[in-house]
Amino acid sequence: MNLTVKSIAATIALGTLAAGASAQVIGKAEDQIRWRQSAYHTLAWSMGRIKANVEGTYNKDQVMQAANLIQAVANSGMGALYQPGTDKGKGHKDTRVKAELFTDKEGVGKVAKAFNEAANEMAKVAATGDAGAIKAQFGKLGETCKGCHDKFRQDD
Amino acid sequence: MNLTVKSIAATIALGTLAAGASAQVIGKAEDQIRWRQSAYHTLAWSMGRIKANVEGTYNKDQVMQAANLIQAVANSGMGALYQPGTDKGKGHKDTRVKAELFTDKEGVGKVAKAFNEAANEMAKVAATGDAGAIKAQFGKLGETCKGCHDKFRQDD
Repeated sequence: MNLTVKSIAATIALGTLAAGASAQVIGKAEDQIRWRQSAYHTLAWSMGRIKANVEGTYNKDQVMQAANLIQAVANSGMGALYQPGTDKGKGHKDTRVKAELFTDKEGVGKVAKAFNEAANEMAKVAATGDAGAIKAQFGKLGETCKGCHDKFRQDD
Repeated sequence: MNLTVKSIAATIALGTLAAGASAQVIGKAEDQIRWRQSAYHTLAWSMGRIKANVEGTYNKDQVMQAANLIQAVANSGMGALYQPGTDKGKGHKDTRVKAELFTDKEGVGKVAKAFNEAANEMAKVAATGDAGAIKAQFGKLGETCKGCHDKFRQDD
């Protein structure tokens, strides 16, 4: 117990000092595929909730909950779940990622940036409770999802 | 659409009309089960990342990303994904929820509150970058996950 805690403390201290503070990559290929699929399903649920609100009865709290969750996923650093070797494989189901995602850095950067910005804006707009503005931003956010799907996701 | 889904839809519709701006419930039973499983996998990924950081090289940004995502899930209102009729069924896989979750309101409230408070505190502590405090809070947060699993989740 003491030894472990000491080593951890030492590692943490060294890591902090050395700025060898690269983010950790965790999980086997199938874990990473499952986690990213889970994150996308979580986004789909959240988008579905916002859609139901802008098309039906509007509930400000629920839209904020959904938008905050989308924002947290967008800013989660989930790009780390696309390690080499995860271009094929099964999480909850077979990954639909296209090979291009692992080679087209510029293209990936572009769709990721668009999604992140739209997600951050969505959370901001959701907090205002302005249903019209939220509907407009929801449309823009959906476009950024589609932008990535069209380019980097295989059809079912 | 089978009878179960129709009854749920009727219940939801009535609920919505009665309270005006009640939160919307979306999805069929299998969608709700899949979404909640996805949210839990997203939590597991995030907890795994924090664990890797407190046990290995510490990266403040990554811990914040993970903690913010956990907080957003905790505050997402995902209790709505436990509609009547979702006590059995398959999302990514068969649900492991125990029947008690649908009847023991007080017990559910208790574990949910404990998790929410611990998740909010985790995000706060993560922002400080104090590795020792984060490790301690990570332990407490993990206990609240376990508290719910022990009570409301069947073993594999």
